[in-house]
Amino acid sequence: MELIKTIAEMQRVSASFPAHQKIGFVPTMGYLHAGHLSLVEQSNRQCDITVVSIYVNPAQFSPTEDLSSYPRDLEHDLELLTQYKVDYVFFPTNAEMYPAGYKTWVEVEEISNILCGASRPGHFRGVATIVLKLVNIVKPHLMFMGEKDFQQVTVLKTLLTDLNLKTQIVSCPIVREKNGLAMSSRNVYLNPQERQQARCLSETIRKIQSLYKAGITDSAQLIEAGRKHIRERGGKLDYLSLVDSETLEMMLVSNSRTRIILAVFIGKTRLIDNQALVSR
Amino acid sequence: MELIKTIAEMQRVSASFPAHQKIGFVPTMGYLHAGHLSLVEQSNRQCDITVVSIYVNPAQFSPTEDLSSYPRDLEHDLELLTQYKVDYVFFPTNAEMYPAGYKTWVEVEEISNILCGASRPGHFRGVATIVLKLVNIVKPHLMFMGEKDFQQVTVLKTLLTDLNLKTQIVSCPIVREKNGLAMSSRNVYLNPQERQQARCLSETIRKIQSLYKAGITDSAQLIEAGRKHIRERGGKLDYLSLVDSETLEMMLVSNSRTRIILAVFIGKTRLIDNQALVSR
Repeated sequence: MELIKTIAEMQRVSASFPAHQKIGFVPTMGYLHAGHLSLVEQSNRQCDITVVSIYVNPAQFSPTEDLSSYPRDLEHDLELLTQYKVDYVFFPTNAEMYPAGYKTWVEVEEISNILCGASRPGHFRGVATIVLKLVNIVKPHLMFMGEKDFQQVTVLKTLLTDLNLKTQIVSCPIVREKNGLAMSSRNVYLNPQERQQARCLSETIRKIQSLYKAGITDSAQLIEAGRKHIRERGGKLDYLSLVDSETLEMMLVSNSRTRIILAVFIGKTRLIDNQALVSR
Repeated sequence: MELIKTIAEMQRVSASFPAHQKIGFVPTMGYLHAGHLSLVEQSNRQCDITVVSIYVNPAQFSPTEDLSSYPRDLEHDLELLTQYKVDYVFFPTNAEMYPAGYKTWVEVEEISNILCGASRPGHFRGVATIVLKLVNIVKPHLMFMGEKDFQQVTVLKTLLTDLNLKTQIVSCPIVREKNGLAMSSRNVYLNPQERQQARCLSETIRKIQSLYKAGITDSAQLIEAGRKHIRERGGKLDYLSLVDSETLEMMLVSNSRTRIILAVFIGKTRLIDNQALVSR
């Protein structure tokens, strides 16, 4: 496994990849968990070379968010990635990615300003910009991303298509803890009681799925049942929506194209989750 | 010379260019004049393959501007490009470049909102987005652009650097008519009297250059002399600035790094021009 710190070196390496080899890329913010590692496994399976980036991108955090406290453990991350036989780990500094005088930002309109984008203004602008930069540096054929960040995957698929880039996104299923909690680096913020409470996100998804199965298609009714459950478990709802899985538009009447998507504060920690209304 | 209308075909062609060949690209809005052709000549000289695009990008025109009347003559353009031994001409449709559901826009902050950007809100956002798309499609090593659009060149150099693209911009000197008027597709809008008046742009540049040579370095004084000249010739000044040629920041005291840059309405036609304060 080769460690790369500079853009110039990463570009030199990516330019040297043989044309017939398939390059897989897993962009991460580090503090790796089983969700990230499932992406690495997928890349290893589908590609000849796997590049993982570790970069906590300041541009996707608002001033009031948890940038400074975001969990980091590079040493452990590198151990894991060595075990998983990653070929290259790219971990640039902020000065590399946003040097003095940096001015260029990418925005995927409409779908960046709803759901998580409404709660986190500027978040997807930061995500879109850094991922575009990383794609230009690494030049992967396939980019592996977790479905936990469902809106992020939608935003980035739109970005790549709109900007005529050839990189394809492979979105991979959410990896969950035994109790249903979606894996997230932010789960480390939870104390034992909050960890119990946090189950309400996946429980809400299952509740809505079963109500739909029982014949309820009115989204307002499904959402109200979900809200009630989160309230009872002591979560503070940020949003709970039933949206079209392609366009992320709200659906008044739910059907097999619907995605359940939600964000909930458990104590001070904001958690997200989502799932298809009808499991495939 | 091969004509290419679709993005897919242009991408197929650009992916097939041999790795050892240097690809030159000249993006244009068509209605080609000697300025454009000087860029083609430069590309032919420095590169193995030259691609010219002809695309009147609606996203860089505001609703009140001249998109619908912008001059077009594809047949004549193709004749000229055949004479100049261009290898590929890419002329996509709007539906190719901005299909239904298009959402992604790139902004180079600060330098996009001054000078021409102040007079034409959204203009450089449209320019940055289309050029990023074209670069992703054509994948050139060198992109040839005219210095008449000095701010555009600065914006696009910043874009390419910030987004970690390897394409380099080669900016080429302004080509002028015998009377000093900078070549522009929009010159066709001028009636004979206006064409005379339009000389005031280059005259203003020469006047400021000679005042500086005579020892005046106070930018306000230099600008006032220029304003006066344009007023006397019946032009309506949009802006006249003395800026740092790298950063485009206004300079209160001018020196050898200063660029004279201006936009003037002659009748209804908005013309631009610029030159180094000290000619090299």
